[in-house]
Amino acid sequence: MGFAFRRMVVAGVGLIGGSLALAARQRKLVEEVIGFGRGERNLRVALKEGMIDRYFLREEELPRGVDLLVLATPVQAVVPLAENFLPGLESGCLVSDVGSVKGRIVRDMEKLLPKRIPFVGAHPIAGSEQWGAAAAVAGLFSGQRCIVTPTRNTDPGALKRIISLWRRVGARVEAMDPEIHDRILAVVSHLPHVLAYAMVNTLGRSAVDSVDPIHYCGGGFRDFTRIAASRPELWRDICLANRRAIGKRLTEYIKELDRLKRWIREGRGDRLERDFTRANEIRRQMAS
Amino acid sequence: MGFAFRRMVVAGVGLIGGSLALAARQRKLVEEVIGFGRGERNLRVALKEGMIDRYFLREEELPRGVDLLVLATPVQAVVPLAENFLPGLESGCLVSDVGSVKGRIVRDMEKLLPKRIPFVGAHPIAGSEQWGAAAAVAGLFSGQRCIVTPTRNTDPGALKRIISLWRRVGARVEAMDPEIHDRILAVVSHLPHVLAYAMVNTLGRSAVDSVDPIHYCGGGFRDFTRIAASRPELWRDICLANRRAIGKRLTEYIKELDRLKRWIREGRGDRLERDFTRANEIRRQMAS
Repeated sequence: MGFAFRRMVVAGVGLIGGSLALAARQRKLVEEVIGFGRGERNLRVALKEGMIDRYFLREEELPRGVDLLVLATPVQAVVPLAENFLPGLESGCLVSDVGSVKGRIVRDMEKLLPKRIPFVGAHPIAGSEQWGAAAAVAGLFSGQRCIVTPTRNTDPGALKRIISLWRRVGARVEAMDPEIHDRILAVVSHLPHVLAYAMVNTLGRSAVDSVDPIHYCGGGFRDFTRIAASRPELWRDICLANRRAIGKRLTEYIKELDRLKRWIREGRGDRLERDFTRANEIRRQMAS
Repeated sequence: MGFAFRRMVVAGVGLIGGSLALAARQRKLVEEVIGFGRGERNLRVALKEGMIDRYFLREEELPRGVDLLVLATPVQAVVPLAENFLPGLESGCLVSDVGSVKGRIVRDMEKLLPKRIPFVGAHPIAGSEQWGAAAAVAGLFSGQRCIVTPTRNTDPGALKRIISLWRRVGARVEAMDPEIHDRILAVVSHLPHVLAYAMVNTLGRSAVDSVDPIHYCGGGFRDFTRIAASRPELWRDICLANRRAIGKRLTEYIKELDRLKRWIREGRGDRLERDFTRANEIRRQMAS
């Protein structure tokens, strides 16, 4: 297959943007990959690691001939950045993103962009608590899910090209309504991150008779809180952009904890065992 | 060094008991290791895997000449089992346990056992979400912490022998007050288990428009909930035995979540970022 795009700009060459750039270059899906970002040091890493052919630092320096702009910044920056790029975007340039929240982004982008600039929302479910170009790897999306979120306004040709791009970097692509995406991600990803940050802060505040409990954390605690090593600005943005769905899940979760707390206080071993067993059965069905 | 004990009975040949049996036999710390339990199938696995020399199924069949009895059952069973064994225990037989809760066990055991049967509480901080003899490995305690919880009633000679046993199977042994132990473990281990079980149940209840979110769980969710694959009866027991400390931490944690929920609802990105950053810094200091 030939190049799918001639000139791709990746705005935000972090774990996701950098990995996409690397995979697209290695598989020759894009003739030229250009990085954009505020931090030149990070872009130099991306250049040195062969993720990008060159980079620029200011929106008005957007090169000519760009036919794919991927916005791979924390979610709150996606729409403002698109707005800044808009004057320089040529007709037919496809715009996409990789954000963990889709409803608001898709709505705002459809409002912002004229018909000649098609937008397709995408969310590759891949990543780790690492961040920055230094963490990027070409195989990040191999076998991982990528959800695309077309609406009735989406250009079918643009959708097809974005699906093809993600397939060719190894992802299993699936289309989904943006709002349903956000409600699902709230429970499988956004809520756990909030809970993990809260757990680490509870630990941080809990000196026991001048003993710092942090020294007694084992592998279980480390697994449980690994996602709390994720980039704070990223998760702040996600919480704000998906506040309704996250708030709803958080309310349900707090109710669940209130119930467990009551059973622990009242010594209701039967109820605890029933609940723990149910969770245990669900969890054991997943890969470890 | 010669044998530290002549005849050790391990009551509950699971992950911890089985691993101790295996390590003690391989390192020739004990002349004979005898398993005890209710489940003969599990004991047959232990026998086949070389963890034990033989086994018995009823307390009254306790062999003569036992000089170390290790109670390695879920915590609620420790004291009742010691009571059942008591008529058969010979003077000088050392009794110990491996429970994740120490205060109540140590208090009850000191009340139960006569002076001629010394007790030393111990808690090796090792393990995983696996359980049963099949999961036991000789190296489980290598480099891991083992907390012993002597009181002013503890026989110094017995304490020394238990410390030596755990050191010789590879653990880093530390002495600690039983109540302080329980308050520390509540935050670094017991609370996270309760939270992980609750998260999986929240997931289990949250179908989104007939889509089951479970199919969208990534590596972050799997890490976060790995401990929910732990044995339910074990954690039911721990919750009951350490209910005060766990209840207190759970209350603090719920307050933390209420605060985050308010900030998410009110769009307080500054507060969210500050809190997430604090957690992030603490977590990044730990091993990944």
